[in-house]
Amino acid sequence: MSNRVRLFVETSLRKDGIIPLNDKQKHYITKVMRLGLGNKLVVFNGKDGEWHAEITHISKRLCNIKIIRFVRKSENESDISLVFSLLKRGATDLLVEKATELGVSRLCPMISKRTNTFKVNANRLKAICIEASEQCGRVTVPIIEQPKTLGNILAEWPRQKGLLFLDESGSGKPILEVLREKTNWQAHAILVGPEGGFTPAERDKMLQNSFIRPATLGERLVRAETAAISALSIYNANMAIDHYKN
Amino acid sequence: MSNRVRLFVETSLRKDGIIPLNDKQKHYITKVMRLGLGNKLVVFNGKDGEWHAEITHISKRLCNIKIIRFVRKSENESDISLVFSLLKRGATDLLVEKATELGVSRLCPMISKRTNTFKVNANRLKAICIEASEQCGRVTVPIIEQPKTLGNILAEWPRQKGLLFLDESGSGKPILEVLREKTNWQAHAILVGPEGGFTPAERDKMLQNSFIRPATLGERLVRAETAAISALSIYNANMAIDHYKN
Repeated sequence: MSNRVRLFVETSLRKDGIIPLNDKQKHYITKVMRLGLGNKLVVFNGKDGEWHAEITHISKRLCNIKIIRFVRKSENESDISLVFSLLKRGATDLLVEKATELGVSRLCPMISKRTNTFKVNANRLKAICIEASEQCGRVTVPIIEQPKTLGNILAEWPRQKGLLFLDESGSGKPILEVLREKTNWQAHAILVGPEGGFTPAERDKMLQNSFIRPATLGERLVRAETAAISALSIYNANMAIDHYKN
Repeated sequence: MSNRVRLFVETSLRKDGIIPLNDKQKHYITKVMRLGLGNKLVVFNGKDGEWHAEITHISKRLCNIKIIRFVRKSENESDISLVFSLLKRGATDLLVEKATELGVSRLCPMISKRTNTFKVNANRLKAICIEASEQCGRVTVPIIEQPKTLGNILAEWPRQKGLLFLDESGSGKPILEVLREKTNWQAHAILVGPEGGFTPAERDKMLQNSFIRPATLGERLVRAETAAISALSIYNANMAIDHYKN
């Protein structure tokens, strides 16, 4: 992959289009990455694929780039969502950054009984997603949903989409066993609870839904954000051997 | 698992032994966790298993605990080492914390051509390992080795121990495929390079060793610390299905 600077932009992308960068982008491109007039970079907007662009104008106040050529479509990125309890700020930030690197398509903040953080700064999380996407070579940026209660998430869940529940009670089968079972059920999302886990009542309610399968990461008490990162890593590894064999 | 406060101590553990806590431990136990006289806690030293203890003395300057009863041996913790290039401080800290949670037995800092951090604060890393071990329920604490060059690591490597090399060039098989292949080779360690990867010469040199198998985590450019966390998660998940089936 290219070592070129990658930049996410909000505008649509087409050949010869001129894009004026905003102040933050200008600072990043000219000061942090120290690119100058005529230098090339890679741009993407999450919809139109990846393009090469060139810096065509720099002045004290403005920096324009011109779209030169199409590079690649949004690759077949995995269709896996992460439903996670809001955590302390540092832990949520880490989870969002790493989940983005690991290719998550949708981030769904959840509030359950033992969630003890309710504030979510959507702009901050979006900025983390964009930066991680720029750095890891993604052509898309994960969608961040509005926080919902566990009850609402379950009620609105599309029944045909499998939800893998990381059950810290340890009663589930090992996660890779659940992912590899040959059944109609297929994981479309991973659900990770708050630091203190789910209440027994919440757990019972979840397990009444046939779209939910419980799975365990093992006996160690990993933190919630570690559990999310581990589960996404294992999901990806399992998809990779399926692709490799086919 | 117990929600009790867990404390790592350096002294040996036997029934009825009295352990005077040092200032940091005293502060943690009495101020942070707010335990008082007669309260119970869990102690471990990485060698003698896990014990229940009780606070038997608190004064302005001292806090003593008494060992009450043996709880469990050092479980069959996985024998997996992580050889990693030193990274920026935040990234190394994260890698060490998460690798501890994920059960790594040995952390081996490595210096290769593109490593751009050479300082390592062993006490700081040890403190991170201890805190993560206390929190995740481990009975052992990972061993942290002295940093070595890639050349020295390869030269001194025990030939019978498989080294899984996370090859960011993408030429290796998918990691789970490598771990699941039925051969004599078995992964005893995971090797992750610096942010810029290994040089072609380093890569060629590594691949000349039959104890080394290259593996890929996929096409996405995950950061070095993410690669380490992912690989350990996948290793654990694979071990768990082997145990589950046997």
